[in-house]
Amino acid sequence: MADCGLFGIYGHKNAAELAYLGLYSLQHRGQESAGIVVSDQMTLRQHKGMGLVTDVFSDSATLSELVGNLAVGHTRYSTTGSPLPGNIQPLLVNCKGGPLAVAHNGNLVNANALRRRMEQEGSLFQTSMDSETIVHLTARSQKRNLLDRMVEALAQVKGAYSILAIARDKIIAIRDPYGFRPLCLGRLGDAWLVSSESCALDIIGGEYFRDVEPGEIVILKENGLSSFQAFDSSRHAFCIFEYIYFSRPDSKIFAKNVDKARRGLGKELAVEHPAQADIIISVPDSSNTAALGYSEASGINFELGLIRNHYIGRTFIEPRSEIRDLMVRIKFNPVAGVLKGKRVVVVEDSIVRGTTMRNLAGLIRQAGAKEVHVRVSCPPVRFPCYYGIDFQTEDELIASSKTVEQIRKFLNVDSLGYLSLDGMVRAMAGSPGEYCVACFTGDYPVKPEEKVEKVSLEKM
Amino acid sequence: MADCGLFGIYGHKNAAELAYLGLYSLQHRGQESAGIVVSDQMTLRQHKGMGLVTDVFSDSATLSELVGNLAVGHTRYSTTGSPLPGNIQPLLVNCKGGPLAVAHNGNLVNANALRRRMEQEGSLFQTSMDSETIVHLTARSQKRNLLDRMVEALAQVKGAYSILAIARDKIIAIRDPYGFRPLCLGRLGDAWLVSSESCALDIIGGEYFRDVEPGEIVILKENGLSSFQAFDSSRHAFCIFEYIYFSRPDSKIFAKNVDKARRGLGKELAVEHPAQADIIISVPDSSNTAALGYSEASGINFELGLIRNHYIGRTFIEPRSEIRDLMVRIKFNPVAGVLKGKRVVVVEDSIVRGTTMRNLAGLIRQAGAKEVHVRVSCPPVRFPCYYGIDFQTEDELIASSKTVEQIRKFLNVDSLGYLSLDGMVRAMAGSPGEYCVACFTGDYPVKPEEKVEKVSLEKM
Amino acid sequence: MADCGLFGIYGHKNAAELAYLGLYSLQHRGQESAGIVVSDQMTLRQHKGMGLVTDVFSDSATLSELVGNLAVGHTRYSTTGSPLPGNIQPLLVNCKGGPLAVAHNGNLVNANALRRRMEQEGSLFQTSMDSETIVHLTARSQKRNLLDRMVEALAQVKGAYSILAIARDKIIAIRDPYGFRPLCLGRLGDAWLVSSESCALDIIGGEYFRDVEPGEIVILKENGLSSFQAFDSSRHAFCIFEYIYFSRPDSKIFAKNVDKARRGLGKELAVEHPAQADIIISVPDSSNTAALGYSEASGINFELGLIRNHYIGRTFIEPRSEIRDLMVRIKFNPVAGVLKGKRVVVVEDSIVRGTTMRNLAGLIRQAGAKEVHVRVSCPPVRFPCYYGIDFQTEDELIASSKTVEQIRKFLNVDSLGYLSLDGMVRAMAGSPGEYCVACFTGDYPVKPEEKVEKVSLEKM
Amino acid sequence: MADCGLFGIYGHKNAAELAYLGLYSLQHRGQESAGIVVSDQMTLRQHKGMGLVTDVFSDSATLSELVGNLAVGHTRYSTTGSPLPGNIQPLLVNCKGGPLAVAHNGNLVNANALRRRMEQEGSLFQTSMDSETIVHLTARSQKRNLLDRMVEALAQVKGAYSILAIARDKIIAIRDPYGFRPLCLGRLGDAWLVSSESCALDIIGGEYFRDVEPGEIVILKENGLSSFQAFDSSRHAFCIFEYIYFSRPDSKIFAKNVDKARRGLGKELAVEHPAQADIIISVPDSSNTAALGYSEASGINFELGLIRNHYIGRTFIEPRSEIRDLMVRIKFNPVAGVLKGKRVVVVEDSIVRGTTMRNLAGLIRQAGAKEVHVRVSCPPVRFPCYYGIDFQTEDELIASSKTVEQIRKFLNVDSLGYLSLDGMVRAMAGSPGEYCVACFTGDYPVKPEEKVEKVSLEKM
Repeated sequence: MADCGLFGIYGHKNAAELAYLGLYSLQHRGQESAGIVVSDQMTLRQHKGMGLVTDVFSDSATLSELVGNLAVGHTRYSTTGSPLPGNIQPLLVNCKGGPLAVAHNGNLVNANALRRRMEQEGSLFQTSMDSETIVHLTARSQKRNLLDRMVEALAQVKGAYSILAIARDKIIAIRDPYGFRPLCLGRLGDAWLVSSESCALDIIGGEYFRDVEPGEIVILKENGLSSFQAFDSSRHAFCIFEYIYFSRPDSKIFAKNVDKARRGLGKELAVEHPAQADIIISVPDSSNTAALGYSEASGINFELGLIRNHYIGRTFIEPRSEIRDLMVRIKFNPVAGVLKGKRVVVVEDSIVRGTTMRNLAGLIRQAGAKEVHVRVSCPPVRFPCYYGIDFQTEDELIASSKTVEQIRKFLNVDSLGYLSLDGMVRAMAGSPGEYCVACFTGDYPVKPEEKVEKVSLEKM
Repeated sequence: MADCGLFGIYGHKNAAELAYLGLYSLQHRGQESAGIVVSDQMTLRQHKGMGLVTDVFSDSATLSELVGNLAVGHTRYSTTGSPLPGNIQPLLVNCKGGPLAVAHNGNLVNANALRRRMEQEGSLFQTSMDSETIVHLTARSQKRNLLDRMVEALAQVKGAYSILAIARDKIIAIRDPYGFRPLCLGRLGDAWLVSSESCALDIIGGEYFRDVEPGEIVILKENGLSSFQAFDSSRHAFCIFEYIYFSRPDSKIFAKNVDKARRGLGKELAVEHPAQADIIISVPDSSNTAALGYSEASGINFELGLIRNHYIGRTFIEPRSEIRDLMVRIKFNPVAGVLKGKRVVVVEDSIVRGTTMRNLAGLIRQAGAKEVHVRVSCPPVRFPCYYGIDFQTEDELIASSKTVEQIRKFLNVDSLGYLSLDGMVRAMAGSPGEYCVACFTGDYPVKPEEKVEKVSLEKM
Repeated sequence: MADCGLFGIYGHKNAAELAYLGLYSLQHRGQESAGIVVSDQMTLRQHKGMGLVTDVFSDSATLSELVGNLAVGHTRYSTTGSPLPGNIQPLLVNCKGGPLAVAHNGNLVNANALRRRMEQEGSLFQTSMDSETIVHLTARSQKRNLLDRMVEALAQVKGAYSILAIARDKIIAIRDPYGFRPLCLGRLGDAWLVSSESCALDIIGGEYFRDVEPGEIVILKENGLSSFQAFDSSRHAFCIFEYIYFSRPDSKIFAKNVDKARRGLGKELAVEHPAQADIIISVPDSSNTAALGYSEASGINFELGLIRNHYIGRTFIEPRSEIRDLMVRIKFNPVAGVLKGKRVVVVEDSIVRGTTMRNLAGLIRQAGAKEVHVRVSCPPVRFPCYYGIDFQTEDELIASSKTVEQIRKFLNVDSLGYLSLDGMVRAMAGSPGEYCVACFTGDYPVKPEEKVEKVSLEKM
Repeated sequence: MADCGLFGIYGHKNAAELAYLGLYSLQHRGQESAGIVVSDQMTLRQHKGMGLVTDVFSDSATLSELVGNLAVGHTRYSTTGSPLPGNIQPLLVNCKGGPLAVAHNGNLVNANALRRRMEQEGSLFQTSMDSETIVHLTARSQKRNLLDRMVEALAQVKGAYSILAIARDKIIAIRDPYGFRPLCLGRLGDAWLVSSESCALDIIGGEYFRDVEPGEIVILKENGLSSFQAFDSSRHAFCIFEYIYFSRPDSKIFAKNVDKARRGLGKELAVEHPAQADIIISVPDSSNTAALGYSEASGINFELGLIRNHYIGRTFIEPRSEIRDLMVRIKFNPVAGVLKGKRVVVVEDSIVRGTTMRNLAGLIRQAGAKEVHVRVSCPPVRFPCYYGIDFQTEDELIASSKTVEQIRKFLNVDSLGYLSLDGMVRAMAGSPGEYCVACFTGDYPVKPEEKVEKVSLEKM
């Protein structure tokens, strides 16, 4: 399922509308598809579609028909290739105990084996998502109630999962024992909220309550919130990349402000890799905060050297005209007045394949920069992620086969500095064992049993 | 026609594709509709539609069918109300001399009277746009060639117009004698470019050549560029609001960098209206540059206190749920970690109705700011614009009826400072008589003969 | 404009709905596009689109928005080539006297010359339809009221026109002095109806009142029906092809039942061209009535030897598979049980290019028919029509260059008989000078001044 | 699944295209949805959609992408209520043995019980179709190959089923032991065809080979056709309603020509229920053949007294105007010239609820008929069908609660005659025990275990 956005609400007459707003503010976690399932305590109704939340729900009648006071929504990350309409979540099925819809953020590492076994026994899978495995395991459990069936199901899967499930009368929120992906609880008057990030609580005027704990199952029902520790959680593995790049700076995740964490990375980066330069610029918008941190710690002015074009629609026709660096120009335009004659530090949050950064550096130089120094607010990404971040296979990660100096040459820049692993953890003011840093170290908290499906997404 | 984006190219085999890219980078000048007309020296072909450039041209086959080596494109500003599909520009008609398409940026002040007279004589108008008046006047002229007919037509209209016209074998670029709206020429190899802003030259790798002069007519034809001064231009009236808000910071307009001008406004603002504060924040993205200028001049740190949501699609369903300040939350989320306990200066480029600023100030305060000081990088907007900027009628402009102190109370902020008229012009390093500052002073360079159609757009 | 369907209603609160039903029953007169313009005595509202009436008006909200008690609708014949959305009628324009919409059935023979003159004087045409000429002439007339302006306009055009015009407070119904195309009046309670054929009166429970006379102008207004003879009508030229093929058998046109006329053609055909045969079959549905007439006069049994497929949608993908006679199989399937071993008379209403008939004859023979005798209920079509019927240019009409015996050989049938001109007129029990028979004789009532645009439609 | 159309082809490079044509000619068996699954011996590809075959496959690219030399298509009957997109067949699933798609014509009588049991054990159903039961039973079977698994699955279901299944390398054609629904084999060069009716063989130039026998399983594979008698078939129950109404007259089903059978029904009807009348008319198109039979046997002339409107699109907006008999006028218009003053026999194939016939009789009388005599070419329909024909529940069948005389009064006609059961079987020249006549007698060959889902379709 990759890294996605989840939002749930229990106990509000406009549940679908608020879920719409919540998903809207989680849009950065997935632009491929969106869906909402709502319950009026009897019937589960859904609306799902490919595209942005505002495109999927472009008709107010659609929301009006989603009657009920509990709702669960999902927004899915866009991977390349042809995403299947059938794969849109939440996944709504008819089980023996009644209708059930499940939304999943994260990635399982033993889904294929489980699937093969169940198919052998006669189960028919409707999608190609690992998430469906959980649904089938739940449906096949002979335990007496839904909760027990879900526990029995989850005891069999391995990997990263934050889950929201909705049945006729309840929402069930679950986080895997390692806590790879964030999930937090909130309140809006009497209603309960649950969301991947706290920014979705803010947009509807709600308040952060607490995180769902690793291994915990939370039930939101008419009689309020109840919860229990379903799975032992001896080792945490919070995805540090959520802080580096994925989450919004105005969110709180893993009980910490993203802005503060990201700014700390920038400051630490300035200490580890200072530069003799005239200005600091960021690659907007994702590295803005780290760049400000770098600027603050270094005392060098922060400037807006790149303008980001925010009008890129769902489809961009790549012209046949041979324009050098076209695709990067489509996204960014350098501000010559800022860059001309300057020694420039470009702060970037991370480098994956390196092609975007190389093209950007070229544009900056064309605009008149005298020197280009790249500073990256995390260590080199060298290993694929099996828990939901859409990193390429190893051979597409530039740092898996090249030294920092080789990368610098590839980028064609004057200097290049990556934040160290120690520096990164130190900036977090967290204990080293709290985070998953497998993409930097290859030290996987849960052993990947299967090859992750290759995706060729470049972070842009 | 309001303020729009124009782009033209003569002499490139991929003219339509490059026009598409040019329009794309002028998207901020109009999200309501887009259109391209192309000529293969014989036939004029067009494609137009409602929506963003990338939505109107979402199919590569569409571009492929626009065969020809000269093209003109137009992107139109979104006004409220129901914009008519028939009103999409360029406006393509069959005249006696052959097909002609006209794209217009600006607003005429005597179009209605001209239209009424021509209708009386039997002319049939296809749209409700003032721009069509120019086309009819041209068609009715009995002069021998197109250029003379256009000159005769334009001699009768008053107001603001930057125009690109395309006939079978040429592009004609025209700027009214006051030069209200920008229009510049560029080169791409052997091809000629013409654009509202220079950022559209950059995206395709072109170079800025010079501005089309006020009152000048430029003809791009097989034998190259020719031009003549069609109308006397004794008084310039460059729209200063293009610098303040409308144009992109990476553009050069009226032969000056927008970034530099806008930064100057921020610096001047810091001098005129200093503040005892801990941080400077901007209302992203339009006031970023002025805020950096303010920060630089004041020595107070610039921070990212508001996150702008860039995923607003074409349709946003306003929920029935009564969420306080909902519409402003849809666009901005305050970063509590940055704002908490701080004395905050919010730099805004301009204030129109004041409601957005009031809601924003409320959000900032809710996020924990101790004090909120608003600084505006232009004087109070007190008079409607008759030349294309979509300001409301007088009674909707908050500054037309309220003093600065009254506005401060309305916004509910601790202090409020507007840049002075003198300060603004000084920051521009230009002569006072060079600009149109009618929206601040009511001193209209061309007397408005007709009420401008009321539009209720709030700058967001 | 070719041959189209017109429907108007004055004085009913559900005018648009009834126009929808009326157009629906005139669907056989045009499947390319449909449109309705309605007036509430103040504003004219329209809805138009490409496709069948039920496709253009597929949303009940659309009809609900067409508020008013007078309405005019138009349905347009599908010609090959790329029909333009801009060409959909009624054509709604803003004239000096207020809005006006015009729907036209028929074809003008001097539209191009008029258009060229007006374009030279500065008029801008929006469509490529000859009908627009009438609108421009009306707009340019300096007469004091609309009626006088329309009379002045129509005095300048030549050719075939049945017209419905709708202004704020009235419907104007006009038929050219020759009366080429049908147009009749009807009543529904207090409301007035006007329609190309009477079947559109029937569907809404209305009653036939009388025909609009050649050269007459009828005005439907609040004070009821008024009329005057606007143009002298010394020679009638009712399109006889309306009886032969175009109109519905349940309609009354030119004050006569189509069924009766068509049956008479079949009887006369049996007398002129008897056959030694076992069964009579028709090419459904258009020649059913003539075939029954032939059967009655000959005493030979009528059978259903061909099944027509009525599910052909707007788009039919022609497969790459090389299937012999595929396109004719798509429309017709022979009934082997009926045809096997029989001597078969196939009655067809008319033959244009001959290819469909040849393929059909082949299918009938493959299904086991021993002999195939083709009988055509009109004379050979040898000349193009300049008044609205979509016949090909002369060289595509098989009878323009081939004798009957040559055509028989081309069709590969055992015998072929065409009804004679005398027999056709005799069957009508009308005076020979009453009809236009130019497609058979080349004797054109109004001299064609211009080449008709070539269309390559095969009657199927 | 109700009564549907099936088409399969093995061994032709243009399999999808030919399936498209086959489905097109089976369009009368289902206008609700259509789908094709094709195999290239490795991958199964599908395209399915709501609407007519020509609408679902309106893009030639769609067909081009369906690469492979074996294909199965399905077209589904339109029932009222809201048909679900998920319910479109063929139903394609991933089983342990590889992909499998199943298309089903007929209706099972024990699907709900089977479904409940499997859901209890953990199977997840994707649709609400009884057909899915067969797929799940097949998937759950632990037999070694697909054929054995299907036999084990079908041994558990009861009711009517003609089935086409497609796997990577084969098509499997199955008919239930009673043979309720037709299914025949054909040849096209070296390719094998299988179809619900022979008209689908004709359209592509194929030839009828033989019927799939009741209880037989036919396998089409690279090495040709093989077959075995999978289920004992001691009692046949061919749906006699296929002859009366459902199949096309140019088809051969149950090894007999529909035209011949239907004509025999008309003749027998004339013998049993003669009438003193001037003309015979049919309710086009379904009773045309029976009416011709009646005409032939009675010696009374057959006339076209009703014109059927073939332009009814997928959506017809029912106007608010209170037009008497509107819905029947939408479909039929009486031909006054034929009916006026005449004693009319209306031959109808069957009467279900009676409302359409009553409205038609009213229209005929309004058009001037002196007497109206209704003759029905089958006995009174008194019992619901559990095997696929969409008859209403008992209380909606007019004959279930009314005598013939009471129905005559309800229809308000001068006389009414139904063909007798004996007459019907005699006309078929078949043995009485060969057919299912349960809708007339209530004598169900397979006991219905469950209530059929109520549908309120009126035969129109």
